[in-house]
Amino acid sequence: MKFIYTFPEAKELSKELIGGKAWSLVKMCSLNLPVPAGFIITTEACKHFYQNGKKLCEELKTQIIESLAELEKITGKQFFSVSNSETPLLLSARSGSCVSMPGMMDTILNIGMNDFALKKLESLTRNTNFAFDTYTRFIQMFSDIVMGIPKSKFEKAETHEEKLTKFKNIYKNKIGFDFPQDPQEQLFKAINAIFCSWENSRAKFYRKMHNIPCDAGTAVIVQSMVFGNFDENSGSGVFFSRNPITGKKEIFGEYLKKSQGEDIVSGVFTPISIENLKNSKIWSDLNKVSQILESYFKDMQDMEFTIERGKLYMLQTRCGKRSHEAAVKIALDFYKENLINKTEAINRVECKQMECFLYSHFDEEKIKQIKPIAQGLAASPGVAIGKVVFDPKKAILDSKNGQKIILVRNETSPEDIEAVQHSQGILTACGGMTSHAAVVTRGMGKCCISGCNEIKIFENSYFEADEKIIHEGDLISIDGFSGKVYLGEVKTIPAKFSDNLNEFLELVDSNLNIKVLANADNSFDVKKALEFGAQGVGLCRTEHMFFAQERINCMRKMIFAVSPEERNNALKKLLVFQKNDFKKMFKLLMGKPFVIRFLDPPLHEFLPNSENEILKTACSLGISFENLKISINNLKEFNPMMGHRGCRLLISYPEIAQIQAEAIFSTALETNFKNIEIMIPLIGDINELKFIKNIIKEVYDRIIGSTNSKINYKFGTMIEIPRAALIADKIAKEVDFFSFGTNDLTQMTYGLSRDDSQKFLKHYYDNNIYKSDPFAHIDIQGVGELMKIAINLGKKSNPNLKIGVCGEHAGDPQSIKFFASLNIDYISCSPYRLIAARLAASQNSNCL
Amino acid sequence: MKFIYTFPEAKELSKELIGGKAWSLVKMCSLNLPVPAGFIITTEACKHFYQNGKKLCEELKTQIIESLAELEKITGKQFFSVSNSETPLLLSARSGSCVSMPGMMDTILNIGMNDFALKKLESLTRNTNFAFDTYTRFIQMFSDIVMGIPKSKFEKAETHEEKLTKFKNIYKNKIGFDFPQDPQEQLFKAINAIFCSWENSRAKFYRKMHNIPCDAGTAVIVQSMVFGNFDENSGSGVFFSRNPITGKKEIFGEYLKKSQGEDIVSGVFTPISIENLKNSKIWSDLNKVSQILESYFKDMQDMEFTIERGKLYMLQTRCGKRSHEAAVKIALDFYKENLINKTEAINRVECKQMECFLYSHFDEEKIKQIKPIAQGLAASPGVAIGKVVFDPKKAILDSKNGQKIILVRNETSPEDIEAVQHSQGILTACGGMTSHAAVVTRGMGKCCISGCNEIKIFENSYFEADEKIIHEGDLISIDGFSGKVYLGEVKTIPAKFSDNLNEFLELVDSNLNIKVLANADNSFDVKKALEFGAQGVGLCRTEHMFFAQERINCMRKMIFAVSPEERNNALKKLLVFQKNDFKKMFKLLMGKPFVIRFLDPPLHEFLPNSENEILKTACSLGISFENLKISINNLKEFNPMMGHRGCRLLISYPEIAQIQAEAIFSTALETNFKNIEIMIPLIGDINELKFIKNIIKEVYDRIIGSTNSKINYKFGTMIEIPRAALIADKIAKEVDFFSFGTNDLTQMTYGLSRDDSQKFLKHYYDNNIYKSDPFAHIDIQGVGELMKIAINLGKKSNPNLKIGVCGEHAGDPQSIKFFASLNIDYISCSPYRLIAARLAASQNSNCL
Repeated sequence: MKFIYTFPEAKELSKELIGGKAWSLVKMCSLNLPVPAGFIITTEACKHFYQNGKKLCEELKTQIIESLAELEKITGKQFFSVSNSETPLLLSARSGSCVSMPGMMDTILNIGMNDFALKKLESLTRNTNFAFDTYTRFIQMFSDIVMGIPKSKFEKAETHEEKLTKFKNIYKNKIGFDFPQDPQEQLFKAINAIFCSWENSRAKFYRKMHNIPCDAGTAVIVQSMVFGNFDENSGSGVFFSRNPITGKKEIFGEYLKKSQGEDIVSGVFTPISIENLKNSKIWSDLNKVSQILESYFKDMQDMEFTIERGKLYMLQTRCGKRSHEAAVKIALDFYKENLINKTEAINRVECKQMECFLYSHFDEEKIKQIKPIAQGLAASPGVAIGKVVFDPKKAILDSKNGQKIILVRNETSPEDIEAVQHSQGILTACGGMTSHAAVVTRGMGKCCISGCNEIKIFENSYFEADEKIIHEGDLISIDGFSGKVYLGEVKTIPAKFSDNLNEFLELVDSNLNIKVLANADNSFDVKKALEFGAQGVGLCRTEHMFFAQERINCMRKMIFAVSPEERNNALKKLLVFQKNDFKKMFKLLMGKPFVIRFLDPPLHEFLPNSENEILKTACSLGISFENLKISINNLKEFNPMMGHRGCRLLISYPEIAQIQAEAIFSTALETNFKNIEIMIPLIGDINELKFIKNIIKEVYDRIIGSTNSKINYKFGTMIEIPRAALIADKIAKEVDFFSFGTNDLTQMTYGLSRDDSQKFLKHYYDNNIYKSDPFAHIDIQGVGELMKIAINLGKKSNPNLKIGVCGEHAGDPQSIKFFASLNIDYISCSPYRLIAARLAASQNSNCL
Repeated sequence: MKFIYTFPEAKELSKELIGGKAWSLVKMCSLNLPVPAGFIITTEACKHFYQNGKKLCEELKTQIIESLAELEKITGKQFFSVSNSETPLLLSARSGSCVSMPGMMDTILNIGMNDFALKKLESLTRNTNFAFDTYTRFIQMFSDIVMGIPKSKFEKAETHEEKLTKFKNIYKNKIGFDFPQDPQEQLFKAINAIFCSWENSRAKFYRKMHNIPCDAGTAVIVQSMVFGNFDENSGSGVFFSRNPITGKKEIFGEYLKKSQGEDIVSGVFTPISIENLKNSKIWSDLNKVSQILESYFKDMQDMEFTIERGKLYMLQTRCGKRSHEAAVKIALDFYKENLINKTEAINRVECKQMECFLYSHFDEEKIKQIKPIAQGLAASPGVAIGKVVFDPKKAILDSKNGQKIILVRNETSPEDIEAVQHSQGILTACGGMTSHAAVVTRGMGKCCISGCNEIKIFENSYFEADEKIIHEGDLISIDGFSGKVYLGEVKTIPAKFSDNLNEFLELVDSNLNIKVLANADNSFDVKKALEFGAQGVGLCRTEHMFFAQERINCMRKMIFAVSPEERNNALKKLLVFQKNDFKKMFKLLMGKPFVIRFLDPPLHEFLPNSENEILKTACSLGISFENLKISINNLKEFNPMMGHRGCRLLISYPEIAQIQAEAIFSTALETNFKNIEIMIPLIGDINELKFIKNIIKEVYDRIIGSTNSKINYKFGTMIEIPRAALIADKIAKEVDFFSFGTNDLTQMTYGLSRDDSQKFLKHYYDNNIYKSDPFAHIDIQGVGELMKIAINLGKKSNPNLKIGVCGEHAGDPQSIKFFASLNIDYISCSPYRLIAARLAASQNSNCL
């Protein structure tokens, strides 16, 4: 079995076999760029190593020895060189797996250094410093990585000679043998160590996090050393083909004279910006290389290089990581430069990066240095800094007094909505990615960490986290991107919506074949939605119009009405509110589609919670405290998510459906708005749908029938109950569209309460049972299968059926990819997720 | 269009067209039995009547007139008869739809009576009484049914003449016209009235109850009258071909001399048993008819007859309703008499009737006369009489003092189990057919009414129902067959398990191709199960072993343990209990299969509820009241049914799975029990299953691996989460069997909490949205579809996969019929439902 390839031999080999780093070296070789000679030990050899009880097999050893002989020939250098012009052969051995795992595995430089090479190097270079430096560096690195002696054990010394002696002694004391002088033995041990580093705990953890297969193995690249630390005309550096922060078309990077690559990484020395090399030969060399690699890889490159005595050597190239700004600009520029086509340009920006345009974020360099006090779920992006407040009323008050507040609660409820609005960010101890706090803040574009069960709230006056007590009024910083909570104030970088972004989004939209609509419950939302490019409103949750104080009182009157008259009186007041809301939204939408969902939540969400609230409500309703309490208790449910909500409410109280239909039709009539779509939630049976459809039809006939007008409203249903998916053929005959409510569909399909599951799902992640939160990324296997069933059945009986998704997943790029594969017509997500959703939808628009 | 047929013409026509009653007359005609001549107006005519604005169309009228002329020819009688030997033609007009709706629609006798016929009848029969009686009867009936004048308006009078005059005057005063003298007009009006009676409120209600289509319509049978009230040699009666109470092979019925059929029905006169006619000509005539009809219809017949001047006329025959005892005996006898084959015999008994062998029931005659004070769900069959007690502790105490108790609660919880055992029956205001109270009582064979929201419990000291206050200690009777609650004591008929039943069940079992197993959680249940013919235990819910006082304390210690050691100590105690339980059950089962389900319920079910209980628990656990309360609060869930339960518990606390596996394997080893099947609840993901399978495997290796023994235990999973059904192919590869938990599967598929849904489902029944409770009868469309998907996927990847059902539906005959069509291997239900389940399974064993 062939375990080893030279770079020219490896031209046609896969990344899987030779690893990403070697693959880029091979490419650079074939582009005639200056790459130090070397060979690649394949990932197959690594697998073999593990099968062989973590030992290098004889066959591999033989191939290494042969390759070394070949390398001596090519470079003209030798381990025990007799030449008087060439330095002895020294080697680097680097790890490199198929998927980049930066810093996770090991690299060893200067293999081959020994007493013989020291003398030879000293005499040939007349550079005692360099020779000794190279040798002591090697002893330290080899001891650390191969033999496990920590770097810190190696001390400083006055002279080179003393230092070398010291280092050798430390080695001998720890290991019991002299430092090995045979370069071949050194190399075998180094390769062994690098193979072993595939299984170190950091690497394992990284693979788990990034879903990298455990048995892929790493390749090892053995290369002839070039010496950035040779003299003043030598050095090493890292550079990008374009500016990775701004995207500007100019090479960007750092250079450190008289250094080896690790010196830059270590942070001990401070490199200079390569801008300072402008007009130098290095500058023009780097620009040439940069151009060649960009036009070959058709992407911005991140490269490592070494200069030895003025000559450039390329050590690595890869596609460079870049900021959101740079990503957008580079994609646009490459497109304009005709290096990539439209689809490629659209795919060049990660959907995740879109969020950075919308939200301020913490300075990455700073947060690296601070330990968070707790970790929760990254429920809503953005960051926030403010004083801890537990009481929603206090939050409102303090905020009105100009203070910045972080509201900290076990969980929020609809009653807290005003306090949420007044807070900079929300931190909850319970609840998941689709808890009330999470959903509401995402809608507002406000930062939220939910389900942070590492904090314990006591008596609403302080919380405990990381063995610290945080009192009301203490300053904390919360990061909605990572779910991390920090004590004190963290430096923040503000959000910016650039011209480049707008230009890029135009490109994105020009490729869309899925409509991207927004969830919007009021005119503020609608404005935001249109600003962020929504093609209409795909979900207006009418119940959200009823949580404000005056309205919730009407709702409560409606709920506790003892007669249909009382109920109707309360509903008539709500009708006025709702009509006004609709009027404002219709005006803003100017004919864009508007999907209105009828009342959905369990009634108890509208009920007062605290004794105090109950008392106030009882007074305002003119009933006794005791009676109200009993009524509230009667409305309590064991499992409200599967209880009296959605269309079930409309069947118990048809008056609600009547009043909602009346609000819609009469406002439409008054404003001449034509693009209405009515949607019924929680349908599980065809008779539920028919019952409510009839009510709506009757109201339509009453309000529109008597006029000369006509409103071609569309009628649709949420598909969020598994049964609805299973009988979709029957349902489809009655409707114009389906809109998948993937939050509830996920809850029911899994039998998993989104409000409770965070408590125990950590065991699921720990044990690798779930790979991700099914409420964050759509479950393709189960929920996705139900969606397929529903779409197939539905389209079979109604070929004109429109299909949409309006659950939280509609804003998640990973989920959108799957939805696109189902050939759906639209997605609808909260305004702040629109940009990423547009990009995701556009990236997947051609996938069929 | 032909609307009318004579009996001979109708020989080949369907019941749908001519109605059941006419169909039986036609059959009797063709068997040459004496049936008064007549003709049938079809159900098509009725439909036409309704399409025609509730009017008889001219075409129908013409056909009626033609048919009357024909009838005059056949009978030799005429309306305005000039004959001196024949009485004038009088007619009966009876309703008769395809499905029998006894007493719901109208019948009118003696049509044709008028002043002319009166005189003719009087002179010909020389029977003034008879003639006047016939006329006044007719006026009264016609006035009531056709003109809507209540019978009570007609008063008594001294003489015939006075009575007649009075009746005619009443008619004229109410209607404004003289009583109609034209027989044709009388008949048209009568037919009109009968057609209209199809839509009277009783009939509509009956159809809704029995799922009879609303548009089927009724036929009308017009027949020449025969007069049971003619003279002493005349009379009318009703009889059965066998005894409908005991099943004895001897005709059984009642006869009333000098009467028309309605006299028996009215209850004004007391008929004699036909036993008294033994050795008479009537007796031998009836026996002959009975034999002919039985051997034709091959079932016991319920017949109406009239004797006119010694001559027998048959008016109706139909298959007779019979008691459970009679049903079994008649099925057996017919089988032995070779009138029917085995399958027919098995199908001759209704599954519902099986319950009567198990439970005492209220005297049907008595409860007809009492108004119930409330109506709830018939949650568990049987009846109970006892004193109302609200407090479970008091219930236990009073019961120990020899009192009979009905426990009345809003809802029961596992803590109440002992009180339930001590009560005669349970009445709950909340909860559905699968609430705790319902499930537990069905398991115990104890009567229960659940979800009786017509009662309102106040301060646990009294309840209100039907505007009455019922105090603690008041006597009530509850009927678990009907869900009705009665004040005071109702006469009860005790249950009896007869030899005939045993013989019949042998026949039933000989036809089974589905295994019928039992749900049994302890040795008492297992005994019951075997007694009722279970072929093994299909579901042992291990958590039910942990609710007794000492055990629940161990559970609580386990739950609140702060260290794995503490948890293990508590679990070790539970291990001892569980091993003892298993040992007893293994012994009883003697090698029959035993399916053990691992812990399923949400942890909070084991927690103390009341402050008092919490305090006691805190003491016994040695922790503070406050801390325990906080811990309990932390375990509270918003939607426990979709929360931390089932396999999710086993993943959070693998120690529980370990201890349960240890209890099973070590007991099996000690007792040499070989037929173990281990079942995991609430699986939704393949990794959950693998995780727990591994734990079990490890315990097996530890306990069995070190010995020379081997236990070929089977490993299976509940399919109760929709997602499990959707990924059944993957799951099937890991298991030997699926057991559908249709309770949870129904909950999740509908998104419907069984504990909450009763509150609003009444609106669903009222509006005809649901036809039946999906927790009582399996939903074939939705849940059934998921089952099909799971079975298809499962068998595809594992052809040896066994399929069972262990939800409540497994005891419901209607659901069993569907399960049989899925070709499943077994059902498992509570012991008291076994007999009906065996019958249902047997009846459907050949359906594939």
